[in-house]
Amino acid sequence: MADKTRDPVHCHIVENATRELIKERGVTIEDIADIVYNMQVEYNNGLTMQECIDSVDRVLEKREIQHAVLVGIELDKLAEQKKLSEPLQSIIEMDEGLFGVDETIALGSVFGYGSIAVTTFGYLDKAKEGIIKELDTEPGNKVHTFLDDLICSIAANASSRLAHRIRDRQEKLRDEEIQRRDEEERMS
Amino acid sequence: MADKTRDPVHCHIVENATRELIKERGVTIEDIADIVYNMQVEYNNGLTMQECIDSVDRVLEKREIQHAVLVGIELDKLAEQKKLSEPLQSIIEMDEGLFGVDETIALGSVFGYGSIAVTTFGYLDKAKEGIIKELDTEPGNKVHTFLDDLICSIAANASSRLAHRIRDRQEKLRDEEIQRRDEEERMS
Amino acid sequence: MADKTRDPVHCHIVENATRELIKERGVTIEDIADIVYNMQVEYNNGLTMQECIDSVDRVLEKREIQHAVLVGIELDKLAEQKKLSEPLQSIIEMDEGLFGVDETIALGSVFGYGSIAVTTFGYLDKAKEGIIKELDTEPGNKVHTFLDDLICSIAANASSRLAHRIRDRQEKLRDEEIQRRDEEERMS
Amino acid sequence: MADKTRDPVHCHIVENATRELIKERGVTIEDIADIVYNMQVEYNNGLTMQECIDSVDRVLEKREIQHAVLVGIELDKLAEQKKLSEPLQSIIEMDEGLFGVDETIALGSVFGYGSIAVTTFGYLDKAKEGIIKELDTEPGNKVHTFLDDLICSIAANASSRLAHRIRDRQEKLRDEEIQRRDEEERMS
Repeated sequence: MADKTRDPVHCHIVENATRELIKERGVTIEDIADIVYNMQVEYNNGLTMQECIDSVDRVLEKREIQHAVLVGIELDKLAEQKKLSEPLQSIIEMDEGLFGVDETIALGSVFGYGSIAVTTFGYLDKAKEGIIKELDTEPGNKVHTFLDDLICSIAANASSRLAHRIRDRQEKLRDEEIQRRDEEERMS
Repeated sequence: MADKTRDPVHCHIVENATRELIKERGVTIEDIADIVYNMQVEYNNGLTMQECIDSVDRVLEKREIQHAVLVGIELDKLAEQKKLSEPLQSIIEMDEGLFGVDETIALGSVFGYGSIAVTTFGYLDKAKEGIIKELDTEPGNKVHTFLDDLICSIAANASSRLAHRIRDRQEKLRDEEIQRRDEEERMS
Repeated sequence: MADKTRDPVHCHIVENATRELIKERGVTIEDIADIVYNMQVEYNNGLTMQECIDSVDRVLEKREIQHAVLVGIELDKLAEQKKLSEPLQSIIEMDEGLFGVDETIALGSVFGYGSIAVTTFGYLDKAKEGIIKELDTEPGNKVHTFLDDLICSIAANASSRLAHRIRDRQEKLRDEEIQRRDEEERMS
Repeated sequence: MADKTRDPVHCHIVENATRELIKERGVTIEDIADIVYNMQVEYNNGLTMQECIDSVDRVLEKREIQHAVLVGIELDKLAEQKKLSEPLQSIIEMDEGLFGVDETIALGSVFGYGSIAVTTFGYLDKAKEGIIKELDTEPGNKVHTFLDDLICSIAANASSRLAHRIRDRQEKLRDEEIQRRDEEERMS
């Protein structure tokens, strides 16, 4: 039985472990922000890379994402070290087309960012842009069966988060504009 | 890079491994069928245990379920053997309340059986009936963080499958009844 | 073709319409908060009704929830007024057991609050506590096919939100305790 | 209260209504099969259009899909006729970017076909190929806010169904080949 009297692991430890693992597997925050920029720039001319980096950073603060990353990269690493039982070892090692647990785990943290995140995830998972393409074609004995889906998930979430915030900002600007006009009318 | 030239693992090997793992972790098909019976008998008076067993058996033939079981039980066993990296080892070992990857993996195979499966899964995951309760309170060093959600998923899927099939059967009976009456009228 | 040059509807209008509709259909914030309280009090002794009310209020600020409520209640009302086309009119009017679009729409806004929200939703949808039970058994020509699932969704989201915030608060308290002890040690 | 004593609507009526509605809105089975062909031909050289048409046909037999189509097209038509309440009328009429109930309803029936269906859905929803593009840019007062997502969903499901069946067939061929060789060896 699980020992539920122990204190849960502190959120800072979980967040740091998540960031370390992503870096260790060769992916930077900037790599992910690049994808976010490419997905969102057409809807938002003034978009800066810094906004994309910030959005990725905020996504990485979420528990659901952190847990998904910890589990997914652990399985990739264990498969690389041939430490999984068969037939799971073979299935993950060869990134079988009909194996879907990698997408399932990644999708689990995508739903939290709404339907834009889900469709962006699906698009990135097929189109394999930027670092996702590199991970998918890396030579040697690297296993990135889970990692590429996790990166799609983080990029999709950061994209959706930006889309929602840009809308909020536009509405605020419209509100201020309306208020300004009302005041001008009252003044005149 | 994943070696995509190798033949994928044969489906019979994957199915057998799935059934073996569930048995090895102390759960029988009958344990799961019991839950299905309790969930469905109120909607269907004539329901037999054999129908519930058959429904569980059919669910276990699905790739999505098999993959979820292979991954989930592997993680439970690795946690039991203290072979996971920290902080994942602690999180899974203590079955942390806010860790959701176990539910995510189980849910991934629930969606395939429609909305009845999703709500039944949610109910079983809270109400913890039958074998699910036993797994959750088992003494000692057993880790069933993933297994209990997987059993909820299999039971929920088998329940939803039965609900849909019972409806199909009722419609077929109604069709035959209508046809019979039409023929009687034509005869008279 | 959709006219994408028009300004989108302002978020305040959408939020107000959502709150009005729920009230008009006979459900108060307190009704929903009651369910939240019952679901969460066992995990949190000091829980107050005010915290539950606040959590429901915050959930109602979310666009995904608002859109789900607008669509669901519109369909309930149109069905009540017999204004839908057949066979949809009959399916919604009789709240057909295998019709799942009501659960799907409600679930769409549940995913945003993580796996606790999903399982709580499934539980409430089966157990039908409090106002959900009343809606389900209301006499007369009322149609609440979508409303009861929407209320389950709002209650499940508010419950999950509380669970996550309580954890955050506990971690903050632990942090402060550790910091205080560190300082005491340094002082001595 | 819903009248649960009435017989549910017969599945043939629901299926026929679904097929009629899709045709009435200007989409043929062949339009959808074209998308399926384009998505799957790269994984399967010998793929024929007939197989794609058959796969679309089988998907349209599913209750979850039928219900989603009935609800989505009803809402499109009511919006076209300006018969929805505000602010929902405006939101659906202008196909607001942050409105996600259309994707939610479509996604609800995608999960049933596994993770390939989910990612294909996301891809189609962004890339807008074939008939989906046409629907999205149709001039005049047509509202296709829900229809385009529903078509993405049907096409994604039919694609995933084909991918799984092709694998099943390959495994069967491999089995027969192995059996044939075994027999030859025994003979010699």
